[in-house]
Amino acid sequence: MEVNLLHTPEGVRDIYNGECARKLSVQSRISKVFHRYGYQDIETPTFEFFDIFGRERGSVSSREMFKFFDRDNNTLVLKPDVTPAIARCVAKYYMDETVPVRLCYRERTFINNSSYQGRLKENTQTGAELIGDDSADADAEMIALVVDALKSAGLQEFQVELGQVDFFRGLVEEAGMDDQTQETLRELIENKNHFGVEELIAEQEMPEGLRKIFLQLPELFGGFAMLAELEGQITNERSRKAVRRLMEVQRILESYGVAEYVSCDLGMLSNYNYYTGIIFKAYTYGSGEYLVTGGRYDRLLCQFGKDTAAVGFAIVIDRLMLALARQKVEIPVEVIQTLLLYEPEAREDALRMAAGMRERGENVCLMLRRHGMTPENYRDYARRNGIAQIFYQAKNGGNVYLIDGEMEAGAETGDKAEEE
Amino acid sequence: MEVNLLHTPEGVRDIYNGECARKLSVQSRISKVFHRYGYQDIETPTFEFFDIFGRERGSVSSREMFKFFDRDNNTLVLKPDVTPAIARCVAKYYMDETVPVRLCYRERTFINNSSYQGRLKENTQTGAELIGDDSADADAEMIALVVDALKSAGLQEFQVELGQVDFFRGLVEEAGMDDQTQETLRELIENKNHFGVEELIAEQEMPEGLRKIFLQLPELFGGFAMLAELEGQITNERSRKAVRRLMEVQRILESYGVAEYVSCDLGMLSNYNYYTGIIFKAYTYGSGEYLVTGGRYDRLLCQFGKDTAAVGFAIVIDRLMLALARQKVEIPVEVIQTLLLYEPEAREDALRMAAGMRERGENVCLMLRRHGMTPENYRDYARRNGIAQIFYQAKNGGNVYLIDGEMEAGAETGDKAEEE
Repeated sequence: MEVNLLHTPEGVRDIYNGECARKLSVQSRISKVFHRYGYQDIETPTFEFFDIFGRERGSVSSREMFKFFDRDNNTLVLKPDVTPAIARCVAKYYMDETVPVRLCYRERTFINNSSYQGRLKENTQTGAELIGDDSADADAEMIALVVDALKSAGLQEFQVELGQVDFFRGLVEEAGMDDQTQETLRELIENKNHFGVEELIAEQEMPEGLRKIFLQLPELFGGFAMLAELEGQITNERSRKAVRRLMEVQRILESYGVAEYVSCDLGMLSNYNYYTGIIFKAYTYGSGEYLVTGGRYDRLLCQFGKDTAAVGFAIVIDRLMLALARQKVEIPVEVIQTLLLYEPEAREDALRMAAGMRERGENVCLMLRRHGMTPENYRDYARRNGIAQIFYQAKNGGNVYLIDGEMEAGAETGDKAEEE
Repeated sequence: MEVNLLHTPEGVRDIYNGECARKLSVQSRISKVFHRYGYQDIETPTFEFFDIFGRERGSVSSREMFKFFDRDNNTLVLKPDVTPAIARCVAKYYMDETVPVRLCYRERTFINNSSYQGRLKENTQTGAELIGDDSADADAEMIALVVDALKSAGLQEFQVELGQVDFFRGLVEEAGMDDQTQETLRELIENKNHFGVEELIAEQEMPEGLRKIFLQLPELFGGFAMLAELEGQITNERSRKAVRRLMEVQRILESYGVAEYVSCDLGMLSNYNYYTGIIFKAYTYGSGEYLVTGGRYDRLLCQFGKDTAAVGFAIVIDRLMLALARQKVEIPVEVIQTLLLYEPEAREDALRMAAGMRERGENVCLMLRRHGMTPENYRDYARRNGIAQIFYQAKNGGNVYLIDGEMEAGAETGDKAEEE
């Protein structure tokens, strides 16, 4: 035995037993919600040419991608993110489509992060993309879809935080801030470092009104009420438009009846280069990591040759499952109803009985009774696997016995359950 | 626009529109059959350490695997085959389990074949593994499961061909054939090259009875009737046991009522090093490529530290979908029932109407009516996407109009369908 044969690479894992059943159950509930909203499934390859996820299109830096070569020495990558792949597909297959396209997916994504971050390198993501619609209605539909999807998974307490990349971009533009300073400021704001922001802004030349907004940035999160007040203070068009858009989206979310799940965070910035409008992340308690990330990317498809607006999001299923487990949310899964034990002499009857049960929609595990195995062994097995009942059949035309928890002696005794 | 951004690497593809919906529908039908038989889902990582799929355990040669390195310079591979990964899992998580374990999966597999073969390099495979049961009953359950799975997908005409690797191994052992000769013979038989086999066998020293069996090898396929006759001619124990096992499996398949789908092929050999008993492949007309491949691998788990028997199979979903398409098999898919167009002034009513429909289990695509788009544009869209009806709402509290194929003028006219 080579012990290391049992190991898996760092950052990837097996999912089995109840955990796998729950994951598939949650995924299928979320898919159903996507379908209810008129989204259609799409699958893209596990690996693509590196360029698809290049700097201007990607959300992940080159050194965090898993790379290898094809037979012609082109660089391939395991896809770190699904959105650019779907943008490519839409430009390829829906080039002449003028009506918005709604697509949803369930894919694995790969990020070769440093292991000390303790994060998974392979994740299952499920998400939706609405392409060809630049309206606030489209933004709101996405948020409503996130809320319904998370609720369908059984999550009850969560918040979708809503930001707008143009708000920040308008401010730094107005302040004439260079790239390096922007970057430093961005980091300070993301870390909610008030003092750092104050220090940096104090060093910059800018009108007092603008300075005041910059200083507020790390605190611009919470209810939407602040937006109206903020709007009056803004002195550049780009930021003002961004705030107005958020207000519009918020009004539509009221009509959807999901506003209670949504708050706003104007200090939310994004590492994704392709976002151009609203951005959002969903969080639940017990973890600082987002369960959902999304936003508007009106200029990404243009890079693939189709000039159209788009908005989308991805739910990180693995994080959602962890949150559901921590919050002890019960996830209904399919069970095996029956373990049907039989002796070789009872095979025909046992097969017939199993076929009948399966036809009626029951899950049945057929098992030839093995020499040396006691009823207790099978009971343990049934318990471990959530199997509700064990039947035993010794010969064709003979009785079928229900082996229940009370039975102590051999399998030959027990309640008579069914006769064929 | 960079045109090559639309390209995908050779051997991988996008699956969208109806094709994707059909694929997911078929996969979910097959999963349901697996569950009916008591199989439980498992997911393994997309990539593993190279050794897991090494020579003794693998079904694919090293140069046909996609390889890359982790941050510690270990060789990783995209999994070319699921069975060794599941063997690893069972040895890891079910080490002390004495009752048979039933697992099923749906995974992508990767084979870096030469492109001139025109085969896909990325495939979706779904399959089942029954571990810890060395009985003919287990063999038969696998075949019955394949038959039920293919039928659930809508396939009607197909054959599962059944072989036994020990039959051939017993013969070459008895003949004292060296590895090189075995390999040449194997190729000749696989190519059903009668003359080649004759020539090679003529050069070898062996008893006449054995020679006669070798010469029959390329023709030993068809009904099971030949097995009884063949059994009398065999002069070594290993081959005789192999034939008896096939006869036993066949009898059980009669009890399952699936014998009509199964034939036998003693000339079937396998490139998979890990098979030890029965092997099988399922074919349908119109393609020489198998849809399903499987077999018994009683010594594979031992390499991972758990000495237990196993049998399993994989359905190559992509090939199955191709066969279903060629045979024009209708696959039921979920559709979008309604496209609900609205003006901004009708938003509240439209959202409410959509929510109601979705609650009743309908799939509804909500769409803000865009300036410049005619009813005809939306009708085309509905037709292309199989959407049954289009509703249009112009203002809150106003009428909801059904836009049907007969309507020629603007969306304002039409049948009144619903009032809120």
